[in-house]
Amino acid sequence: MARYVSEAVIRRLPGYYRHLRELEAAGVVSISSRDLGEQMHQTPSQIRQDINCFGGFGRQGYGYNVSELKERIGEILGLDQPHRMIILGAGSIGSAIVRYPTFPMEGFRTLAVFDSAPEKIGTELAGVPVYSVDALEDFLRRETVDIAVLCVPRDAAQATLDRLVAAGITAVWNFAPVDLVYPPDEVVVVNVHLSDTLQVLSYKMAHRGEA
Amino acid sequence: MARYVSEAVIRRLPGYYRHLRELEAAGVVSISSRDLGEQMHQTPSQIRQDINCFGGFGRQGYGYNVSELKERIGEILGLDQPHRMIILGAGSIGSAIVRYPTFPMEGFRTLAVFDSAPEKIGTELAGVPVYSVDALEDFLRRETVDIAVLCVPRDAAQATLDRLVAAGITAVWNFAPVDLVYPPDEVVVVNVHLSDTLQVLSYKMAHRGEA
Repeated sequence: MARYVSEAVIRRLPGYYRHLRELEAAGVVSISSRDLGEQMHQTPSQIRQDINCFGGFGRQGYGYNVSELKERIGEILGLDQPHRMIILGAGSIGSAIVRYPTFPMEGFRTLAVFDSAPEKIGTELAGVPVYSVDALEDFLRRETVDIAVLCVPRDAAQATLDRLVAAGITAVWNFAPVDLVYPPDEVVVVNVHLSDTLQVLSYKMAHRGEA
Repeated sequence: MARYVSEAVIRRLPGYYRHLRELEAAGVVSISSRDLGEQMHQTPSQIRQDINCFGGFGRQGYGYNVSELKERIGEILGLDQPHRMIILGAGSIGSAIVRYPTFPMEGFRTLAVFDSAPEKIGTELAGVPVYSVDALEDFLRRETVDIAVLCVPRDAAQATLDRLVAAGITAVWNFAPVDLVYPPDEVVVVNVHLSDTLQVLSYKMAHRGEA
């Protein structure tokens, strides 16, 4: 896949994957771009354009094979590979992530949670052990970890990221409300700034009906 | 502000707001688009273009007044108005939202949490009462609520949204991993599909160095 795929298309892929999985579960075998567009509140040409980014699916007038397209989008998303995660921070966000029901079935397995609070160390969260953050580097030398989930308070986020990067972590899912500094050629970071999305909602409430 | 503001610009606004607040806290009085761009990993022309969407700030060569720009972006985001929220679902995501430290200082106040589990009803989450979801409509008749935060399991999400909309709620922050159906002219929905953002990370890991 040498073709350039825009950030906007990448962001839409999980929505397609989710929707196709639901169609598959409902027993739908094939679907037209028109029906898919209607269901996903997009134009058929948008759908066709997105899907064409990944090469020849479906034929004009025949629609897409739901299972095939779902599998292919899953592959493109890297979901055919299992992922091994650790969570930094056993607070309420870290706890919510470790308990999130669909991650294991999508191949995202959480190996350990790290925290600095003595009362949390040695406990378990949803069956996942909570270790001292002092043991982080040792753990990363022993275990293969693909993804670190950063759920520490904002003031600890950059220092924790620096430790993770120094220990060889190259993919970070960040929940700390801060713009992290990292070597962009070596490390991939995807941010979930909850406060930002709530502010987007506030914007849309304030500007209702304007556009 | 009659000018059309694109979704992409709207999504960037909270990042500006967050960054300007940090600059203000650090005592920075004014900043050039070049410095702001460098700090935010954007080109100066992107910065100027974004900020121009909201009318005349700063003058060529003088930079932006940090506090003024922060205030203005806060107003545009609707943060000059307090917001009253309820949370549907006292599970781990709902608990994380009610405990999120910065929402109250950004004017987002959580009045109540609603759940259907008998053992949760009558308890408190971080000082916020948990009521039976049976009491939802009564509560909404008595209290002014701007935002409903949907943290119920995916199979309950659409039915809960329908109840909220029928009871007059017009802004929803949705954490359920499902594409909700609602009247788009009446209701504003912003989704946080956690699984989607994790899949975007997986995509970027799988396609590292390609673009």
